[in-house]
Amino acid sequence: MQKKVAVILSGCGVFDGAEIHESVLTLLALSSQGASYQCFAPDIAQLHVVNHLTGEVMDGETRNVLVEAARIARGEIQALNELDAKDFDALILPGGFGAAKNLCDFALKGADCQLHPQVLSACQAFARTGKPVGYLCIAPAMITKVYGPGVKLTIGTDQDTAAAIRQMGGEHQECQVEDIVVDEQHKVVTTPAYMLAQNIGEAATGINKLVDKVLELA
Amino acid sequence: MQKKVAVILSGCGVFDGAEIHESVLTLLALSSQGASYQCFAPDIAQLHVVNHLTGEVMDGETRNVLVEAARIARGEIQALNELDAKDFDALILPGGFGAAKNLCDFALKGADCQLHPQVLSACQAFARTGKPVGYLCIAPAMITKVYGPGVKLTIGTDQDTAAAIRQMGGEHQECQVEDIVVDEQHKVVTTPAYMLAQNIGEAATGINKLVDKVLELA
Repeated sequence: MQKKVAVILSGCGVFDGAEIHESVLTLLALSSQGASYQCFAPDIAQLHVVNHLTGEVMDGETRNVLVEAARIARGEIQALNELDAKDFDALILPGGFGAAKNLCDFALKGADCQLHPQVLSACQAFARTGKPVGYLCIAPAMITKVYGPGVKLTIGTDQDTAAAIRQMGGEHQECQVEDIVVDEQHKVVTTPAYMLAQNIGEAATGINKLVDKVLELA
Repeated sequence: MQKKVAVILSGCGVFDGAEIHESVLTLLALSSQGASYQCFAPDIAQLHVVNHLTGEVMDGETRNVLVEAARIARGEIQALNELDAKDFDALILPGGFGAAKNLCDFALKGADCQLHPQVLSACQAFARTGKPVGYLCIAPAMITKVYGPGVKLTIGTDQDTAAAIRQMGGEHQECQVEDIVVDEQHKVVTTPAYMLAQNIGEAATGINKLVDKVLELA
């Protein structure tokens, strides 16, 4: 039977939203493995808008996470508060700064971060029902707030981010770009993606492994 | 020796810019085949901004094609007027409405369309020097303005678009989503991509073939 996977996007663009390559590579891997997917995003304002050419914040400009994420989903997306875990076998959260700026406030508050209530609620629903969840890139910074201390995960090799995750009670494991870390007990799969990837091919290798493992656990 | 490919993007999002999946799949295929790439986009205003959730034009909002395309390129992009064909072995133009709204005005004027001067100049430089060019989705609507009448190409099976292309002198050939049309004389390769694709996997199959053929001709 075809497995159904929910994908939570955080906007559209690495510096203020969902990392586009990671998001598309996730959808491609799901499609290649014969799974179906549905994209979701919270219907909230982005923390800010970054000019991706200059890297500068565009003062006075506002964009909506759901509306921008719809670009990646070609319009086929739903508001996150419509996500019901019982309709899906698994959940995947691509990275990009949007995961740390819009889905939670890790980019601002580090270990003191909180998840947006809709994100927390959705992730907890999958955790509670023992359904596997894959977190890419910086998105694993949210994991301890969902599963509590002791959960095994990776964000790659960045020492400061790893320290913040350990401070939150996470069991951070170093991991190279083409690999994944699996917490079999919690059914949590993580991969560094563009926390480490030097090119799109490297990101794809780890993401393909993550998607395979998430579907295997589903 | 590693082949170098220029990729011209037309924004970021299927309804007003570059189709995101097609763009990322192109970059992935190039990387997988061992080629290097550099993204370019014209530093001009988009024709308009479309809310990708509702499909409606966002009145009063303006965005810049280069700045938005930088989202797909993770900031690693150059203005199109900096593209020198002698630095590259081939050129690829992904689709999305941005190709027909920002790179040319085919979406407004059909067979009477004109290419933006920078786009025309860049494409002509590759044509003149016999370097292969791949056009995806609706981007082939630009081809006859570059090569003149008689050039062989496809946009899939859409009869109205095919008629407009024939009116411009193009030799349109019907083509299914997983296939390509090759004009060996002009070194022009085309594939329908999301003109026909029902899912990302279908788009990927044709795009992978196009990239393989473009690199073979380079």
